[in-house]
Amino acid sequence: MDVDGGGGGAAQEEAERRMEGEVRRAVEEAKELQDAAATRVAAASGEEQSMRQRTVALDSTIRRLRASVGAQAVGGLLDPKVAERLEEELQRARCIVADGDASSFLPSKAQGGFVRMFLGPINVRASRKEVQLKVKEEYNSYRDRTALLFLIFPSALLVLRSWLWDGCFPAFPVQLYQAWLLLLYTGLALRENILSINGSDIRPWWIYHHYCAMIMALVSLTWEIKGQPNCAQKQRGVQLFLQWAIMQGVAMLLQNRYQRQRLYTRIALGKAKRMDVVWGETAGVDGQLWLLCPILFIMQGFEAYVGFLLLQTALVGVTSEWQVIFCGILLVLMAVGNFANTVQTLLAKSRFKAKMKRTKGKQELD
Amino acid sequence: MDVDGGGGGAAQEEAERRMEGEVRRAVEEAKELQDAAATRVAAASGEEQSMRQRTVALDSTIRRLRASVGAQAVGGLLDPKVAERLEEELQRARCIVADGDASSFLPSKAQGGFVRMFLGPINVRASRKEVQLKVKEEYNSYRDRTALLFLIFPSALLVLRSWLWDGCFPAFPVQLYQAWLLLLYTGLALRENILSINGSDIRPWWIYHHYCAMIMALVSLTWEIKGQPNCAQKQRGVQLFLQWAIMQGVAMLLQNRYQRQRLYTRIALGKAKRMDVVWGETAGVDGQLWLLCPILFIMQGFEAYVGFLLLQTALVGVTSEWQVIFCGILLVLMAVGNFANTVQTLLAKSRFKAKMKRTKGKQELD
Repeated sequence: MDVDGGGGGAAQEEAERRMEGEVRRAVEEAKELQDAAATRVAAASGEEQSMRQRTVALDSTIRRLRASVGAQAVGGLLDPKVAERLEEELQRARCIVADGDASSFLPSKAQGGFVRMFLGPINVRASRKEVQLKVKEEYNSYRDRTALLFLIFPSALLVLRSWLWDGCFPAFPVQLYQAWLLLLYTGLALRENILSINGSDIRPWWIYHHYCAMIMALVSLTWEIKGQPNCAQKQRGVQLFLQWAIMQGVAMLLQNRYQRQRLYTRIALGKAKRMDVVWGETAGVDGQLWLLCPILFIMQGFEAYVGFLLLQTALVGVTSEWQVIFCGILLVLMAVGNFANTVQTLLAKSRFKAKMKRTKGKQELD
Repeated sequence: MDVDGGGGGAAQEEAERRMEGEVRRAVEEAKELQDAAATRVAAASGEEQSMRQRTVALDSTIRRLRASVGAQAVGGLLDPKVAERLEEELQRARCIVADGDASSFLPSKAQGGFVRMFLGPINVRASRKEVQLKVKEEYNSYRDRTALLFLIFPSALLVLRSWLWDGCFPAFPVQLYQAWLLLLYTGLALRENILSINGSDIRPWWIYHHYCAMIMALVSLTWEIKGQPNCAQKQRGVQLFLQWAIMQGVAMLLQNRYQRQRLYTRIALGKAKRMDVVWGETAGVDGQLWLLCPILFIMQGFEAYVGFLLLQTALVGVTSEWQVIFCGILLVLMAVGNFANTVQTLLAKSRFKAKMKRTKGKQELD
């Protein structure tokens, strides 16, 4: 160690010794920490592996038992009452596995191409149930917020059109609305994919539906809507679209209020998982069936009607842009898909009810 | 248990007993699994908490030591050579903490509003280093793929314009290109946010830069570009924009090839973290400085030039749409920001070199 011509050589040596000691300790501590972290990561992944195996094995056992209880009840080997009790117990066990802390060890759905396209290979599955539930809560509150905007935004445009704009939409506010729709649907589609990866039972159609809506918002942005002499005729499509959007806002609000209450009841009864959500805008046919059903079918009819009107204007030749034809076809397809899915849900429900009745009737006969 | 008038009562009782036993075992196993999972989650979060405290404490110790080594070296209390050695050791310790398995216990940057807007509150921080590195690799390969498209797409449009389209762009291919840009920039901005949350040192400006590019792509979609008699004049902006995009593609390819190689060397030397990436398109002034610097400044100049040309066409009155003015201002702002950030990086580098020289000179004097 070379002591240069500074002040007190002893003081310098003392300072150096002290610093060196502290630095050495810090380096050692860093190495220890690295070892501890590596050990912990390895141990955690080993534990996770074994928990995963246990959970998957139990899950398949429960499935097998449910199938054989059903088969034996049909074959007359089991008393119907006993079968029903066993069925209930198995349902409870399934609920514990699929909805408790162990559920994070069940294999998740593969992350689809949509999420990969936007986010890359990052894992969006939460490992803790409370985080998953927070994600679901946020999805619900996002829908609440957007349902209100879904009502207010197009209503304001339509009101301003007749009061202020003399029957002709200026391009900017409409394009702002379309850009907002694009952002909204992208957010919804990403969130729904994330929910599905986290164990929600959201139907694939409602996610595809939002992909279609995204594409339509993008295409409608390129759509020329400038006010021209015959704008009342040219903007007929925009006007119809806005009216349909208002109806959708009403349906969303109804769903958010009534349907979700109903879902909470079903979760409390153990009939739904805590991660389940009310399906896409037009799927909710679970609760207030007689209130929602007509609204849903009217909306779907109106959606198809708007689509046909767009196709008509394009074919008659007032506006022959490809965007009009494309949006028309897309709207009709979406309406058909929505209708098919709503009917499917209704049929599944009525089949379930019929089966319940049959079981009860048989039991009473027995 | 009521034995009904079925076949063999004994066989039924036997089957019932067996089923009941199996179901009971499954239910018990489910409860045990739930308990085990809950215990594991609690234990893991406790361990994580303590690891986090340890990592944060060590990190701040290293910072404190580095500061006091620097202060004592300046104050003459430490021999410069000793100070340099201690500095190096502390750098190594810092590297172990920030770049090893322990780095996942360092507090992460808050998830910004952009990620929340699209994804909600889901956590996109990977807890394992290998996953983080995979995310980084995928970001690099995403950039590689898009750099090629960045070259090919606008080149094809420009070539087709003079060969096939008679000097006039049709609307659809240009809008397709703009929609692709929107998708691309959204993907880049989301990925860069995710990288930053996972510990990459990406500069905020390059993320803001991609937000601006997203907004511009969205605005340009609403921009009317239909072929009209004087389309050569009207589409001048589009043409310039495409030429600029080709230059950007070249710069991206150069960066991806040369800069990244250089970054890997720096990582191997412990001067960069493994999670670091080559900064946004026009930031790379680390390696081939004399090759890249002119290209970068020419690109930024061209960007500002295109912006001014757009403003000019809008003010002269050939096209007076707000989109033209907006895109013009945005391009100029982006050029200025890019320039400022490139210069800042260069200045930081030259300051660092000057400091190194001064230290060396002082050492030799001593």
